[in-house]
Amino acid sequence: MVRIDGERLLSDLKELRAIGAHGIGVVRPALSAKDMEARRWLRGRFEEAGLEVTIDGVGNVLGRSRNRGPALLCGSHSDTQPTGGWLDGALGVIYALEAARALAEDPSTADLALDVIALQDEESRFYGCLGSRSFCGLLDPAAEAGLTDKDGVALADAIREAGLADTPRLRIEEGRYLGFLEAHIEQGPQLENAGDLIGVVDAIVGLRGAVLDFSGQQNHAGTTMMAGRKDAAAALYWLANAINEEFPKVAGARSVWTMGRASIEPGAPSIVPGRAELELQYRDISTDVLDAMGATMERLVAEANARGGASVEARPSRVGIPPAHMDEGLRGHIARAAEAHAPGKWALMPSGAFHDAGVISAVLPSAMLFIPSIGGISHDFAEDSHEDDIVLGCRVLSDAAAAILREARDG
Amino acid sequence: MVRIDGERLLSDLKELRAIGAHGIGVVRPALSAKDMEARRWLRGRFEEAGLEVTIDGVGNVLGRSRNRGPALLCGSHSDTQPTGGWLDGALGVIYALEAARALAEDPSTADLALDVIALQDEESRFYGCLGSRSFCGLLDPAAEAGLTDKDGVALADAIREAGLADTPRLRIEEGRYLGFLEAHIEQGPQLENAGDLIGVVDAIVGLRGAVLDFSGQQNHAGTTMMAGRKDAAAALYWLANAINEEFPKVAGARSVWTMGRASIEPGAPSIVPGRAELELQYRDISTDVLDAMGATMERLVAEANARGGASVEARPSRVGIPPAHMDEGLRGHIARAAEAHAPGKWALMPSGAFHDAGVISAVLPSAMLFIPSIGGISHDFAEDSHEDDIVLGCRVLSDAAAAILREARDG
Repeated sequence: MVRIDGERLLSDLKELRAIGAHGIGVVRPALSAKDMEARRWLRGRFEEAGLEVTIDGVGNVLGRSRNRGPALLCGSHSDTQPTGGWLDGALGVIYALEAARALAEDPSTADLALDVIALQDEESRFYGCLGSRSFCGLLDPAAEAGLTDKDGVALADAIREAGLADTPRLRIEEGRYLGFLEAHIEQGPQLENAGDLIGVVDAIVGLRGAVLDFSGQQNHAGTTMMAGRKDAAAALYWLANAINEEFPKVAGARSVWTMGRASIEPGAPSIVPGRAELELQYRDISTDVLDAMGATMERLVAEANARGGASVEARPSRVGIPPAHMDEGLRGHIARAAEAHAPGKWALMPSGAFHDAGVISAVLPSAMLFIPSIGGISHDFAEDSHEDDIVLGCRVLSDAAAAILREARDG
Repeated sequence: MVRIDGERLLSDLKELRAIGAHGIGVVRPALSAKDMEARRWLRGRFEEAGLEVTIDGVGNVLGRSRNRGPALLCGSHSDTQPTGGWLDGALGVIYALEAARALAEDPSTADLALDVIALQDEESRFYGCLGSRSFCGLLDPAAEAGLTDKDGVALADAIREAGLADTPRLRIEEGRYLGFLEAHIEQGPQLENAGDLIGVVDAIVGLRGAVLDFSGQQNHAGTTMMAGRKDAAAALYWLANAINEEFPKVAGARSVWTMGRASIEPGAPSIVPGRAELELQYRDISTDVLDAMGATMERLVAEANARGGASVEARPSRVGIPPAHMDEGLRGHIARAAEAHAPGKWALMPSGAFHDAGVISAVLPSAMLFIPSIGGISHDFAEDSHEDDIVLGCRVLSDAAAAILREARDG
């Protein structure tokens, strides 16, 4: 087993938290002054670990092992939500750093090549997973040109402001990597509820969305008889409820769907609504299940239109994200390390949230592990994990990384 | 038959429309400068008709017949919605004026006592039916003290501004009246759709409302499994749809119900909603039917809570309005006059909207007639009725008024 230094790990996580700290939470959105300060601090730490460090043109920090490959890439993102937790992203970066240090300190693993990366803007200030997309060559320069944050700040201006205007972008080195490992907090309550300490991710769920537009006829709620109404809200309530009743018949065990946004116009109690809008989002690890949910939605939209009253049309609300399956070989290594450190207290599970590993899995075998989130809370200053769980997760990651690299070295 | 002057009627309606005109619509909210200008113009017209005229402390304009009673009170309101139609309210006032003139011009009816009234603020700038409530002694002075319009203007200030601060309020004269007749545009499409020319109102529907508060648990829409959710929006969709499915089983033929306002928090597609609110309004002419609808709502609220997930509580959204039944004797006179002028082309119908007659019916036998609204449009600049229909309606009202007064005179 790799011997990590738990104190050093926790101390680094807390030092990183101090950059942009708000109570126990952190405000360090991508390319902000605090984000760049954190990235320069990471560069220093990576260098102290003996890595060859580059900050690239979007702020990705790559600490490259000086050992001969094949190498393993390991890390996550160091940017945060506008009001973020201290572990989300940062955990996986510091885990990778600690794993690299621990491998270097043990003569039996000192020749293994573990590269550490802190990716940029996973949290979508400008574009979700900007850094990993750029690193993997999956970013369309034309699309990038128009990107702004929600306050209208252009990505290009933020890059200039961060001092990166003339800095080249890093691209993944062809042939160097065995794969990519990312550790992350769970951001949900499953591990805690089950008493498990490690989640081994089998897949990152795919996501699809639709906006349902209802067109009826606005009218006086007292003088318009029920039979003559084209009530956009009544159609919305029917369709939303029908989706909730029919989706379980085609959904998988871990499918989720949400209709978290609905608007009704004009929105007065005495007026029969003439227009309404409902947004549906649904997620699963299986494309077949996503297809079946989409087909069910289309069937129910047709039924809604056949009922008379207001009419409804569905349109995609965003570019869907396909499910990303984690590499079986890599996750087998994580599972064995989890069983060694937490016998019987780990679970194979999908990731309901998206991660950089979802991007990188398109070009490299990838795998992820989760540690428990207290109360399942995330994207909130209150996000936290128990220190024992944090240390245990790093042990599992480090052992898995060493096992993967040893397997390649020793054949 | 009473011989009304259709040209004079239309000319007066158009002169009144010119005060506060916006295209063919009118902006003459209660106690505004234009409203008071219209009331002074009405005083002049009432005086020319030989009536004894008083503008009271809220702006009610009463034109009292100089004939001995028993008298009939006839009229409506002359204030408008913020963007009102030209007929709503004004029609019933000018009908009453024309009827009084026509009765006075015919020796066989010149001794009949028809009082004409233009009531104040039926349209709820400060308080719906303020003028008729005040006139009937149904206004609580304590409640009145706190009334403001939606911009925060106090009723007392608006009364002072209108020059009415020291003007006494009129109270209905005990024992003077046989009853109250009000004519109004339908504000709905029933008459036009049926090809009818007159609606004889059997009752003004009662109205009740409830706000349904949903409390769940806000969560990440990707990482929170369906079984663990307390989704406030899902509960709202279920309950709203259940109400739409169950109400028809207890509703009357002309019951209406509307859920025109719904809000979901935080209202993001990626977040399981933690809170939601739905407003239900339901109307019928029968208290028993209103009770049955209310009981059905309560039963469904209990079912919603028994389903698990988010919880829901119902609370009344406003003071309910009881149904107001029109006097059978008075409406019989209207029905006979309607049959004489439009044989087979009139209908007994409820009023889905509220009217001053709904207030006055608490203290006097009351009845209403409707004329068709083109396209059912009301509370809109585009509100209109055909001139032939306008004239016909006044003939029916005048004949009914004469018949009621003759019946009392001749025994």
